[in-house]
Parts: sequence; C-alpha cells; structure tokens
Amino acid sequence: MTEFVVAGAGLGGSLMAALLGRAGHRVTVLERRADPRTGLVEAGRSINLAISERGLHALARLGLTDAILRIATPLHGRMIHPVSGPLAFQAYGRKGQSINSISRASLNQVLLDAAEQSGAVRMQFGRRCTELDLEAGAVVSVDAVTGQAPERHPGVVLGADGAYSAVRGQLQRRERYDFSQDYLGHGYKELYIPAGPGGAHRLDPNALHIWPRGGYMMMAMANVDGSFTVTLYLGFDGPDSFSRLVTPEAVEQFFEREFPDARALIPELAGTFLGNPTGSLVTIRSRPWHIGGKVALLGDACHAIVPFFGQGANAAFEDCLALEGALGRHPADLARAFGEYEAERCPNADAIADLALGNFLEMRDRVASPWFRFEKRVQALVHRLFPRWFIPLYTMISFTRIPYAEARRRARVQTRVVRGVLILVAVAAIAAVWQLIR
Amino acid sequence: MTEFVVAGAGLGGSLMAALLGRAGHRVTVLERRADPRTGLVEAGRSINLAISERGLHALARLGLTDAILRIATPLHGRMIHPVSGPLAFQAYGRKGQSINSISRASLNQVLLDAAEQSGAVRMQFGRRCTELDLEAGAVVSVDAVTGQAPERHPGVVLGADGAYSAVRGQLQRRERYDFSQDYLGHGYKELYIPAGPGGAHRLDPNALHIWPRGGYMMMAMANVDGSFTVTLYLGFDGPDSFSRLVTPEAVEQFFEREFPDARALIPELAGTFLGNPTGSLVTIRSRPWHIGGKVALLGDACHAIVPFFGQGANAAFEDCLALEGALGRHPADLARAFGEYEAERCPNADAIADLALGNFLEMRDRVASPWFRFEKRVQALVHRLFPRWFIPLYTMISFTRIPYAEARRRARVQTRVVRGVLILVAVAAIAAVWQLIR
Repeated sequence: MTEFVVAGAGLGGSLMAALLGRAGHRVTVLERRADPRTGLVEAGRSINLAISERGLHALARLGLTDAILRIATPLHGRMIHPVSGPLAFQAYGRKGQSINSISRASLNQVLLDAAEQSGAVRMQFGRRCTELDLEAGAVVSVDAVTGQAPERHPGVVLGADGAYSAVRGQLQRRERYDFSQDYLGHGYKELYIPAGPGGAHRLDPNALHIWPRGGYMMMAMANVDGSFTVTLYLGFDGPDSFSRLVTPEAVEQFFEREFPDARALIPELAGTFLGNPTGSLVTIRSRPWHIGGKVALLGDACHAIVPFFGQGANAAFEDCLALEGALGRHPADLARAFGEYEAERCPNADAIADLALGNFLEMRDRVASPWFRFEKRVQALVHRLFPRWFIPLYTMISFTRIPYAEARRRARVQTRVVRGVLILVAVAAIAAVWQLIR
Repeated sequence: MTEFVVAGAGLGGSLMAALLGRAGHRVTVLERRADPRTGLVEAGRSINLAISERGLHALARLGLTDAILRIATPLHGRMIHPVSGPLAFQAYGRKGQSINSISRASLNQVLLDAAEQSGAVRMQFGRRCTELDLEAGAVVSVDAVTGQAPERHPGVVLGADGAYSAVRGQLQRRERYDFSQDYLGHGYKELYIPAGPGGAHRLDPNALHIWPRGGYMMMAMANVDGSFTVTLYLGFDGPDSFSRLVTPEAVEQFFEREFPDARALIPELAGTFLGNPTGSLVTIRSRPWHIGGKVALLGDACHAIVPFFGQGANAAFEDCLALEGALGRHPADLARAFGEYEAERCPNADAIADLALGNFLEMRDRVASPWFRFEKRVQALVHRLFPRWFIPLYTMISFTRIPYAEARRRARVQTRVVRGVLILVAVAAIAAVWQLIR
C-alpha cells in the first residue's frame, strides 16, 4: 500500500486514480477546476475525443467498456466534403472496425465515478498545486479561487495535470531537464450543428466528417443527442486565417465560399465564431518523466500532442496501464518502477507526437487527392492478402495495441515496399503494352 | 529618446546598455548579482571566453578594442595533447589570425564601465526581476536577497538575463510561445593550472589546449597572469563519467590514465575536482524574441548555446549591433524594429546553436584523427588557392562576419565539393598507377 497524490482529475488522472484505488493504494486527487459532475462544463474548447482500441483496452480493465460504448458514437470512416460535388466515404479499416466519438466531459464523469468507487480515493476539487516537495514527497495545494488555505499532501506525486502541468513546471526549473513546447501555426475554433427534428443527425453520424481545403480543414463528429461538434483548423496568419476572420461578413463569406454545405447547418455562425475562443495546438516533449521514486508524469503533462490522430487520450490511458504494470512488478522500488515505465512509454510518446503532426498534413491536404485514395485502396488490398505482414498505419494505431514506435517503423517499411511494387507493376505493364503495339 | 529597462548586466546586457546610452536613450539596468567590480566574482563556473572577429567588431563600435586586447591572450590554433607522444599544433587560420582568450569577469567589468560612461545609464545591482507588465511596458524588481522592496521600472524591456532568463520565463507562459531547452548528456568541471615561477605560462599560452579522448575531452585556455583555466567535459553517466568520479582515488586514477601531462600541472586535483560544482550545458531556442514594441530578448536569454565554437558572447554582441541598427532605422516604431531584429538574427542563432553542438563532436572525437588533419590541410590549401570562393567553416565563423546561417550553408557546399574532388583525384591516381604497372 502506497500513498499517492494525483495532480489533475482529467482523463488520465481519474483513470490512474481508479487503477491505483483498485490495487489497494490510498489516493488523493487534486483538481483545479470544480467537479464537472456538479456544475456547468467549460464549453468551446473541447475537441471531441475518439476512443479506439488502446483506450478501450484500458477501460476494459475497469469493466467500463459497456458504460463507455453506450455514450459513444462509432465512426467507421472519413466522409470527405468537397466544396461542391458528392461526398466521398473512406473506411478506416475492415467492416466492423470503428473508432468511438465521445464527449470529453461524459468520459471524464464516468472515470471520476469509477475512481471514487474503486477504493480509498479521495477527490479534492478547486485545489491548485503550487509547490512540489521532492525530498519528502509531497504537494502543497491552495484554493484555486482565493489562492488561500494552503494544504500539504504527503505521498508519491503523479502529475496528470495536462499540457500546462504545474507539476512539470516545477521539474522544468531543475538543471538537466529537457523540455520543448512547439505551437502549430494553426489554431482551432469550435462550432456546433444542432440536432434535426426529433433528435435526428443532420449528417451521417457514423463518419468523421472532414472538409479538407489544403492548408486548413474543418471536422465534425457526432454527439449522441443528434448534434455535431464542429472544429475548424485554420492558420493564425496569412490570406485565409483567423487574423482575417474578424467581422461577421468575413466569417459568412468564408464559410459560403469554402464550406457551403456545413454553412447551412450551423445557426448563428458569425456570432458563435466570433464569440468562441480560438484555441492553440501544442506539442510538448519533456524528459525525464520521473524523479527518483518521488514524482512521475503521465499523459499530456509529459507529452501533449496535436489531436489529428485522435490518440491523445488513448496514449494517456496506455501510460496509466504501463505505470500500473511497472508498479505491480516493483511495488517496493518505485524509482525502478518509474524508470521502467518511462523507458517503455517515452519512445512511443515521441512517435505518436510525430505521427499526429504528420496526420494533419494528410487530413487537410492529401485525403482529397486521387493518388492518396488509390494508395489507400492498394494498402487495404495488400492488407487483405497478407493480413499479418502488412497492416496499414491507421489500422495499427487505431485498431491494434502495437506500440506506437513499432507501428511507425513498420509503416515506413511497408510504404517503401508497396511503392516499390507499384513501380515494378507499372514498368511491367508499360513493357507489356510496348510488346503488344510495336 | 526612449526609456529602456535592460534586465541583466552580463556581457550582452552591459554592451547593449552602452550602445543605447551612446545613442542618447535613458537606460536602467537591473542585475540580480552584486556589482562584480566591487566584490568577489563567483568562481568555478565560468568557462573562459574566446572573442573573435564578430565580438571585436562590436567592441570597436565603442572604442574598446585596445582595452580588451590588452587583457586578452591571442590563440593561434589548437594544441592537441594525446595520452602519450608529442603534442600536435593545428593553426586556426592563416598567419596572424587568432581568437582572443579572455576571462568573463574582466570583459564584463570593461563593458560595465563603458555602459556607465556612455550617457544616461543607471545600474542597479542586487535586483531580481519578478514581473513583466506587457501592457504598459515595465518591469517589477525586488531585492535579490530579501525578496522585499518591490520597485517598478517603466520602459521598453530588453531581456539580456541569460539562459535562465526571468523575462523569457514570463513570455514562455503565454500561448503560442515556442520554447525548448535541451541539455547535453555531458557536464563540465573547471580546474586550474597556476602560473609557473615568475608568472610564466606552463603550457604554450597562444594555443587552445585540447585533450581529445573520444566521447569526452579536456580544454585549457591561458589567462594573462600566467595561469590556465582548465575545463573537463565529461558525460554525467556511463563508464567514464562524473557519476564514477566521486572519490579522490577515482579522480587521481582517471587523470593519471587519461591526462598524465595535465595531471602534473594541476595542484590539489582531487580536492578541487570534488569541491567545484559540475556545470551542465544547455541549448535554448525560443520564439518569438519580442512582443510588440514592449519587450525583446537578446543573447543567451533567447538562444543559449553550448560553448564548443566559442561563439556565445560573440553571437550576443552581434544581437546587440543588429538591435541597435534596427532601432536606428525605426526609432518611432519599436515593434517594427524588434521584428526586423528578430528576422535577421533568429536563423543565425539557430545555425550557430547547431554548429556549436557539431563542434563538440569534432573537438572530442575527430581532431585527433589523421583523416581529419588531412582534410583540414586540404581545406587550407584550397582556401589559399581560391581565397574568396572557398573559406573553411572555422574561418568563416571566427574570422569573418558572414552571417552564421550563410556560413553553415556555404560550408556544406564546400565540403561536398572538396570531398568530390578528393575522390576524383584518388580515382585518377589509381587509374594512372594501373596504367603504369600493367
């Protein structure tokens, strides 16, 4: 039995607390915000989540699969919306394979309940972490609103407090702490398509809708109540950018021109657009993820990624399982457990960070191209012929638990082989035609 | 006339203050430490500096060339110390070309005097910056020792407060601020070779002494009083590393084995080694370097680099001149001036950061190899034949003011051309020999 202090009751923090509680540890969870189950949830900045195989595997460990799938919408593929002309559907994998769209708030609530029911887990909301005592192993928190009423929480500290982690902020000041924060030149704006009459979805709910425009894009994911959460990813500066869309007229014109079908579904477009905040997208890398046996980081706190592979929450959940496994192997030697956890997860976090950045280019620029679609079809065909040897990257990431770094490596080899074969086939075909016509 | 607040009275801060004072601006300089001209200087963590063409050019603008050269020691090349066998000298450039070894403290004192004599420059030592007011343009400082007595300093803020810059620390918290800190796996330890009888140098004072050992190295630079400042660059972990050198016996044995000639010159080796702190080496990149016309960064505060090209101070001095130039072009539009300054300097700072990291590999691993020496000689020869077209990288960095990024680009092209020609010559020679013997 160890005493843990988890900073952050978001997705990673609450799942971790549940796993620790179940394993018989005593856990205090400190969360800056109010309990999301008792009040209003911050809106306008929550990209919908996609939970796929990795996340489901972690949720299954807590027996939460059914509870989660009940409030999720399965997505079988991408629906591409051109400026004009028919929609085009691209399946994510084989029949039956889907990722699961879910609202961050709903998922968080299920996990908070699970944590509280798992054992000796005590939640304290409205507490902001201000200090880290690495010698003794403790956190000091204050009231998040008043900044008063400091309280000391002794225990092994787990920082699950997100991209702007206060725990990591303390570690960053130490010498020899490697850290980077890289912002995309693109930001995002959340918009909303309400449900149709009788709660009907006004677009196919079982697809991730994409409006690729080359250089920027829009996305929509279904909610269970018939509505859609829409996210526009757009540059901060330049000709088509947030810096130009500052008047109702400019917003309306931009949507009329670029997203006419979506425009018709979004009520009060200009007001919502100009009223909602513009979010920024950051990739954070940090190392080490732990100091001795006193503190460890997980999820966005040590490896925030951009959302374009839908893997942020899934990666955090994998962290939690890896940490649980390492603690199980070395219950009396936390320094060693944390070391093994970091060695296992760090290369994978780096890999998914790169893949997520790469997928932005794919989604906004390449999905609409005929060559891209042709290559995807060839990949699907080869996968059917050699299902164990050739697995498309998207399938490895979303429908298997092959470690991210391993998946990236395999995908590189596969792509080279398939392109080589395609070139050989093309050369052979040209040679054959030449034989026939000469 | 503008009111400036310069954070940091190190090399960059004091030179910048002197330039601003000379241009008729009012300047307040805030420095956390005590005035180095009135008390003892922190020892044990100051790598000796090498001032070369870029730095000298900036110093000449203030008429300080003679004052500086008087307290500097010219270094004409590298003296390679093998474990056994004779020393080998490698000239840096042509006859008469040298870099100038100088102690950081002495250089700083000259610059502080110059700043105070340049005009309306007011120095406040023992003040720590705690807050940045970006709206109004101001800094709040407190007494560095007590943390009390806050004072507000209105003005345009220039952050010249080093790698751990408090001003940049404030900017880093803003959204969309790109930042990275990357530590080398190697640290450094300062040691000391005292002067010989009658103040004589016990090694050639006009060379940079290097003990390359593959994986790590030691360096020594002469001081004007006959002593040498020695710096050992060694991994933190691994077989030969700081983590193993924790007893007097281990230290003595390591030096006996690896640096027998230096060992004989360093008195109280083990005591000094174990008593002095182990420094770490960081590369810092950040962007943007300015916010509107309110605050700008310079030197290590925005681009700390590792010391292996001897360019940290030179790069900071180039920043100061670039900033002075931009302010002169746009005296009434500081936002534009800062923007031009950043656009000019940022790619160059990135280039010298990479080159400095690359030079560590060269100094510790490659300088001792015969192929490396052969290539250096070929380069010197080609440079003599085509002095305008072919300039060795080291020469471009140390003996010209070709922008760092341009120097890096040219060096890449040059290396490819010379290697190509060497291969052609080798092939031709083999062909000729073949003709003769068959």
